[in-house]
Amino acid sequence: MKKTYLMALFLSVLTSTAWAVDPQIASNIQEIRISLDSIWVVLGGILVFFMQAGFAMIESGSVRSKNTVNVLMKNYMDACLGGLVFWLVGFGLMFGVNTTGWFGLSHFAPDQLDDWHWNLLFFQMMFAATATTIASGAMAERIHFVAYVVSAAVVSGLIYPVFGSWAWGSLFGGDGWLKALGFIDFAGSTVVHSMGGWVALAGIIVLGPRLGRFGRNGQSHYLPGHNLPLVALGGFILWLAWFGFNAGSTINANVSVGRIALNTHLAACAAAVAYMLLCLIRSKAILIRSTINASLGGLVAITAGCATMSPLYAVITGLCAGVMVTCLPMFMEKMKLDDVVDAVTVHGFCGAWGTLAAGIFLENNMFNGDVIAIQGLGVIAAFLWGFGVAFIVFKVLDKLLGGLRVSKQHEQRGLDYTEHAELSYPEFQKDVTFETDDMTKRH
Amino acid sequence: MKKTYLMALFLSVLTSTAWAVDPQIASNIQEIRISLDSIWVVLGGILVFFMQAGFAMIESGSVRSKNTVNVLMKNYMDACLGGLVFWLVGFGLMFGVNTTGWFGLSHFAPDQLDDWHWNLLFFQMMFAATATTIASGAMAERIHFVAYVVSAAVVSGLIYPVFGSWAWGSLFGGDGWLKALGFIDFAGSTVVHSMGGWVALAGIIVLGPRLGRFGRNGQSHYLPGHNLPLVALGGFILWLAWFGFNAGSTINANVSVGRIALNTHLAACAAAVAYMLLCLIRSKAILIRSTINASLGGLVAITAGCATMSPLYAVITGLCAGVMVTCLPMFMEKMKLDDVVDAVTVHGFCGAWGTLAAGIFLENNMFNGDVIAIQGLGVIAAFLWGFGVAFIVFKVLDKLLGGLRVSKQHEQRGLDYTEHAELSYPEFQKDVTFETDDMTKRH
Amino acid sequence: MKKTYLMALFLSVLTSTAWAVDPQIASNIQEIRISLDSIWVVLGGILVFFMQAGFAMIESGSVRSKNTVNVLMKNYMDACLGGLVFWLVGFGLMFGVNTTGWFGLSHFAPDQLDDWHWNLLFFQMMFAATATTIASGAMAERIHFVAYVVSAAVVSGLIYPVFGSWAWGSLFGGDGWLKALGFIDFAGSTVVHSMGGWVALAGIIVLGPRLGRFGRNGQSHYLPGHNLPLVALGGFILWLAWFGFNAGSTINANVSVGRIALNTHLAACAAAVAYMLLCLIRSKAILIRSTINASLGGLVAITAGCATMSPLYAVITGLCAGVMVTCLPMFMEKMKLDDVVDAVTVHGFCGAWGTLAAGIFLENNMFNGDVIAIQGLGVIAAFLWGFGVAFIVFKVLDKLLGGLRVSKQHEQRGLDYTEHAELSYPEFQKDVTFETDDMTKRH
Repeated sequence: MKKTYLMALFLSVLTSTAWAVDPQIASNIQEIRISLDSIWVVLGGILVFFMQAGFAMIESGSVRSKNTVNVLMKNYMDACLGGLVFWLVGFGLMFGVNTTGWFGLSHFAPDQLDDWHWNLLFFQMMFAATATTIASGAMAERIHFVAYVVSAAVVSGLIYPVFGSWAWGSLFGGDGWLKALGFIDFAGSTVVHSMGGWVALAGIIVLGPRLGRFGRNGQSHYLPGHNLPLVALGGFILWLAWFGFNAGSTINANVSVGRIALNTHLAACAAAVAYMLLCLIRSKAILIRSTINASLGGLVAITAGCATMSPLYAVITGLCAGVMVTCLPMFMEKMKLDDVVDAVTVHGFCGAWGTLAAGIFLENNMFNGDVIAIQGLGVIAAFLWGFGVAFIVFKVLDKLLGGLRVSKQHEQRGLDYTEHAELSYPEFQKDVTFETDDMTKRH
Repeated sequence: MKKTYLMALFLSVLTSTAWAVDPQIASNIQEIRISLDSIWVVLGGILVFFMQAGFAMIESGSVRSKNTVNVLMKNYMDACLGGLVFWLVGFGLMFGVNTTGWFGLSHFAPDQLDDWHWNLLFFQMMFAATATTIASGAMAERIHFVAYVVSAAVVSGLIYPVFGSWAWGSLFGGDGWLKALGFIDFAGSTVVHSMGGWVALAGIIVLGPRLGRFGRNGQSHYLPGHNLPLVALGGFILWLAWFGFNAGSTINANVSVGRIALNTHLAACAAAVAYMLLCLIRSKAILIRSTINASLGGLVAITAGCATMSPLYAVITGLCAGVMVTCLPMFMEKMKLDDVVDAVTVHGFCGAWGTLAAGIFLENNMFNGDVIAIQGLGVIAAFLWGFGVAFIVFKVLDKLLGGLRVSKQHEQRGLDYTEHAELSYPEFQKDVTFETDDMTKRH
Repeated sequence: MKKTYLMALFLSVLTSTAWAVDPQIASNIQEIRISLDSIWVVLGGILVFFMQAGFAMIESGSVRSKNTVNVLMKNYMDACLGGLVFWLVGFGLMFGVNTTGWFGLSHFAPDQLDDWHWNLLFFQMMFAATATTIASGAMAERIHFVAYVVSAAVVSGLIYPVFGSWAWGSLFGGDGWLKALGFIDFAGSTVVHSMGGWVALAGIIVLGPRLGRFGRNGQSHYLPGHNLPLVALGGFILWLAWFGFNAGSTINANVSVGRIALNTHLAACAAAVAYMLLCLIRSKAILIRSTINASLGGLVAITAGCATMSPLYAVITGLCAGVMVTCLPMFMEKMKLDDVVDAVTVHGFCGAWGTLAAGIFLENNMFNGDVIAIQGLGVIAAFLWGFGVAFIVFKVLDKLLGGLRVSKQHEQRGLDYTEHAELSYPEFQKDVTFETDDMTKRH
């Protein structure tokens, strides 16, 4: 990504041969530049960390109250495992010396790096955790906690970093095959979001829909989330964090961050407005959860091209994402796929669209077939790898550890009680019996 | 605001004639300076964006649960429309070439700007959305969603930017008449907050009070908000975001940001403490919603003068705001004005006070009658423009689109059901009937 | 901390005698450096401010709904008083001219400081408020609001700043005795967190346990918190804010911030994973509140040594903190100490451990007995001062103002009603009678 950063900086400062440059001045300038970039990358990473809170609020508000603790715990553990496992193996697989173009093989569990690379490791660690946590909401209300935690570790430590090494290349030598082809994915529409979306798709296929989600005759029963203010809060937090995700991906602080942030914002606005207008035209109710999902779809879509298109095309990218979020969930429903938070649509499909849009609307090279073809290749490769490996992982987990899915009895009772022995609102869930004697052991 | 920024910077670096300056060094320094300012402005804008979450939490917690989704949706749409509409027309009206002093007329829907101006557009877009969303809480629990959305677009695209052009001037040529007089409103006590407050005042006058808010004999019935932890969370989020609002308004990163942040904080602290002490003295209950409103009043008041007064006067400005928030809502109640979140007091009146305070306590020029008179002129101009136009807009909307206010039946039923077909807490609102068949269309 | 900052910077730029440096260039570079440091410190302070929201959410979710407003109000007032009182007296006691080594005696209620010191005052003010608010959760559900507020002012204005002057020294001349010995506490494991924890311990001893917390025969009854999503949100917010706490404590922006942030993150991750694994091994339920507390324990522990150990040791420091949070609350329970949020364990004991760990794992000087002994001395001094003074303060308050603890009747009724005349969820707390007539006066 910027392995030659220090050297280039050093040379640019020192090698103006026509002038005798004071080395003290040159060194001061170099130090300020790397300090500025360091705080920018770290602040970006801090904001991306906060995505975990956003996902946690959206997902916990979107499930029934009997499964709230469970989904919060999955999100919290995603952050923890995403950090530890990415440090242990993910970083090395993704950014280590990559001789084959297919994965890195150095810098596992790094304990000694040069100063600048700590910043990048911190920033990238948060991306890994984000990719990991996308699937948690889709599979909510029916997955075994321990099985989920194992799958999350596989996403952080294998699925995400290997594809990342293809698209974003190495920090320490060699390059990813997809990057070498010229694949554009600035902040990760495909690398982070589609990847998370395809893992989610594999998960909900292996798990099957929640009890009661589809009737015997195939009719669909919507199971409403229990706390919509939390969903709205999560939407705002994700939107906030996305500025760190996209603008922070410049890695070095420069004057381009304003347009990137603006594109990010406009795409989200446009997607939500597209959804609202489609509802008004069709005289449908404007649902808050769909409005928020539309804006998130816009954010996912602009992530690939936010640095390489002008605001007008960011708006168009967002509008299309809004239309997709309006329509695709109906298609998923017809396929009897039960995605609790529409993660496959928002992250998987909008990520794919955004990756194509980054090619289609590429500044100064718009509608270039070759560029678009490589973008499409990246989209397909992401699907094959992400969905494929995740499908195998979930199938294997389904055979181990007592299965991927909880028993019908536990699902009806709610996972908060059966998996965690805690209730999210013990004073307000009156119909729920809760024996304190059971609190000391798992069920 | 800083239209000569680049040129001045360039000159200051290059024109030290006594020294032959290495152009490479000068260019490096210039690039670092503009990069530093860029990330500062963008980070400020990101924080200001988060105000939307703060308003959403305060307002949704302050209404009854049957209107929670509605108020959240209004806030979410304020952010979305505030972004899109300000990009389309607001930015051009506010910062475009301004030959008359009354509005700008260029740079609509900008797709090509120089790098630095993208930063400013991003930052200012968030201010427009903030001004827009202030009114949403005041008018909660009784306004038609679509009518509200139209009014929000008018605030973002006309009311806010036109006054902004008077007070903050142009980026591309010409100047605002109020700015030319020397009006001081550093970060927008009047431009953003009073403007939002006066729009809210017009709205609640046209709408009238909620059903049941005032009895037949004129007695007042307090309608308590349904979720006070959300209100407290919103208070903290707004306070957090305010640091971006005020310190970010320096536009260029410099050593003054610490005192600005400190003044901002001290004013908020002082206002809340003033409220608490007044309650203790009068043996009144210390209400959390009033405590939070007091601190917000302090934040609104210090916004105009945070860069031009010393901390002692920031404390005094905050103390007075705390007294105002303690007393004025009673006056509003006597006038039978039903302001659900006291937005008129907190944003309108405290903004006016803060604008005067910025003149009264102006560093090195305190208690100067001429300065104070111009501050007063700005306050009055803001009221006339903001209240006047908003009043007309709400009156017109009241005649169109089925009226500004929902039917009595819908108001009693709650706007979540009638406007959005969603319940905020479907498991806990037991007394509410909710037919899923109705979810596909608006009522 | 960096009283010679400006001078050193100036000299480093100007005194390269072999070169004739353009003073314009030197001044530009100096200005950029101090601007960069200013925004870094202010951004750090802004993030630390947000800790108040984190504590408010964790604590309000951890109590029963009848005491929610009360604990929110305590947190809100901690922020307000922590700001005002620290400005009035705390800053002078902590950082003023310190001739004895035991406290500073200048710069009270500062109204004129040089630009750079405003940044530091803003940053440090937020630390004082954090130390103050740690105790609020432990003592929840039974302390008089006004008595609490007085004790909070004493923490902000006396207990915290005096110990801070020992460990972190003066900005204006002289030095603290503990700092002079070489005590290491980079961002305040002891100065902020242990101090808060020991105040909490004194508070819960003087107050005694909540009604019903321990049975007649000594058996323990867990009183579950009413809203676990708020607890999770608080956990995420605190974690986010901690990056400002630790990385911001560099004071000057430099390339070390990445490793500090990474260490902070890894320690939190490791602590939560340690707790989870211990639960799985013992077949115990994995509780969300304990998971979050474990991660917070990791954050507290890494705070002292985050700048002076490598990531591997940050992980080890976190793992040990996770074990402590798993085990120590049982010990507290056996001692019949009722700490509602386990603040004594998380902040007191993990802070002590982290301070020792900073000595034990000190980079390039590991396992040095002399270093560890001084760390131990600091830990003991913090306990003696913090616990001792707080114990006296709470005992005195217990004799004044109607006692420290509310009446049994009020405790059973809930402090929201008796202290604030507000209910947190008036629509959902059906069994609670609430006369609106009573809302105008305190009970």
